[in-house]
Amino acid sequence: MRIVVALGGNALSLRGQAFTADSQRASIRAAAKSLSQRLDAGHDVVITHGNGPQVGYLALQGGSFPLDVLGAETDGMIGYVLQQELDNAHLPERKYATLLTQIEVDPDDPAFQTPTKFIGPVYTEDDAKKLSAEHGWTIGKDGAHFRRTVPSPRPQRILELDVIRLLLDQGVVVICAGGGGIPVVQKDDGTMIGIEAVIDKDHASGRLARALNADAYLMLTDVEGVFADFGTPDARLIRHATPQELRTMEFPAGSMGPKVEAACDFVETTKGFAAIGRLADTVELVAGNCGTRISLDPES
Amino acid sequence: MRIVVALGGNALSLRGQAFTADSQRASIRAAAKSLSQRLDAGHDVVITHGNGPQVGYLALQGGSFPLDVLGAETDGMIGYVLQQELDNAHLPERKYATLLTQIEVDPDDPAFQTPTKFIGPVYTEDDAKKLSAEHGWTIGKDGAHFRRTVPSPRPQRILELDVIRLLLDQGVVVICAGGGGIPVVQKDDGTMIGIEAVIDKDHASGRLARALNADAYLMLTDVEGVFADFGTPDARLIRHATPQELRTMEFPAGSMGPKVEAACDFVETTKGFAAIGRLADTVELVAGNCGTRISLDPES
Repeated sequence: MRIVVALGGNALSLRGQAFTADSQRASIRAAAKSLSQRLDAGHDVVITHGNGPQVGYLALQGGSFPLDVLGAETDGMIGYVLQQELDNAHLPERKYATLLTQIEVDPDDPAFQTPTKFIGPVYTEDDAKKLSAEHGWTIGKDGAHFRRTVPSPRPQRILELDVIRLLLDQGVVVICAGGGGIPVVQKDDGTMIGIEAVIDKDHASGRLARALNADAYLMLTDVEGVFADFGTPDARLIRHATPQELRTMEFPAGSMGPKVEAACDFVETTKGFAAIGRLADTVELVAGNCGTRISLDPES
Repeated sequence: MRIVVALGGNALSLRGQAFTADSQRASIRAAAKSLSQRLDAGHDVVITHGNGPQVGYLALQGGSFPLDVLGAETDGMIGYVLQQELDNAHLPERKYATLLTQIEVDPDDPAFQTPTKFIGPVYTEDDAKKLSAEHGWTIGKDGAHFRRTVPSPRPQRILELDVIRLLLDQGVVVICAGGGGIPVVQKDDGTMIGIEAVIDKDHASGRLARALNADAYLMLTDVEGVFADFGTPDARLIRHATPQELRTMEFPAGSMGPKVEAACDFVETTKGFAAIGRLADTVELVAGNCGTRISLDPES
């Protein structure tokens, strides 16, 4: 079975802890342990991860560097620790490769006109205005707080796809497309160049899962699954759904919305199944006993 | 022919320019153009690179993060741009993979007692003392200036060697072991953990070239080659030498010394040849018409 696993930022962070080297390693170690004990040695496995806290942190530190380069930095920052902790946690001897991954986006994607993706810490309105003036940032309202927003164009093409496939075919566990991949566009002369954006991790990972014709696409986070009527007294966990059913429902744009959409896109293209749920429930998610499972046939 | 190419920090930086995203890209682009026009499509190619300015820059910015994680960040920061610019410059269609690379070092390496590797910018004595007190840095004298020094243990084992070999065997150009690789040590329980150090890039690349049984190991920098009696009126370029001849001579510890030693180690182990010279002279270096060539048989 070929599985693409997307580790959400929420699955990778210790709630309520400051973002430091130690807290990052502790949270990645916990995720690696959960994951490694629950994924069969026989599977082809690709692991992707979010980079929300990290890219925000580096953007605050690293003045002049654009988001493509900062994204590549977070691939090293997270991918290295994730590979090391997976390797440390995994008893059956497997090989790992952490690969920088460029993903082409459309320079005319409407997302460049309307930055919607939140990165970095939350600010008061005053601080947000000051930072916006200082750095030229776009600022948006995230609940009661203010945060920097950046364009989040749709992923079109994964440049390293052949290399990822080649590694999987040799049994290597591939860690790639960190933080949604490094966003690049093609110039008129045919060359590629990075662009200031952050691709949504769930869409990027879904694009990869489709391109690899994976059997399963797991989105691991810290909530039980997808809820219908979330935030109302009628809220209930969706255990199984078809893309058709989910497409008629509404989900929060910043969190569950992209996951549900990426799951539907994947299932409709590959006829495989997608699952959304807790990192700690990985085995049960694959088996269909936990979380939300999306497939064409709800009985499958 | 299987070639390992080490791009020196000096080959990758625009002399006299401030370190910014733009200056980094411009210098990497120039290096990629030189390199890509001069390396035959038929060769197996591994490219490694330095990270001196970058790791120093991130260490200044990123307070709490240790050198293994900062090193991994620079692999993203440099490796991504290098891959992109090589791909843009290279006309024959080749595939590229930029891989995070962990290199095991010995926790009892004497280098941990005596930090000698300079990283980051130069300081006045006063500023250096202040930074040392603030961050717990060791400071050393680099010519007339002061700089931060970190331990530089010898590379013992490249953890991703099998994956690198697998990619080379499939014709992929591999960018790896950036900044000398990510230094890790094995703990008593068998697990691996990063350690605060910067492995010398020339030794790390040489270790890799030996492990891959490469035919050639090129160290590309911005000087013509290795000079005998450097800095004296008798200074003269060494065109050919055997390891035996070079081992009797003295070279500056911070710059040419490790290159010469890594070249000798490589040639003695593999019977291949090493060459040290200008990035712009890559083709002539491989042909033996330029720079310094080190081999067992000076006529070869």
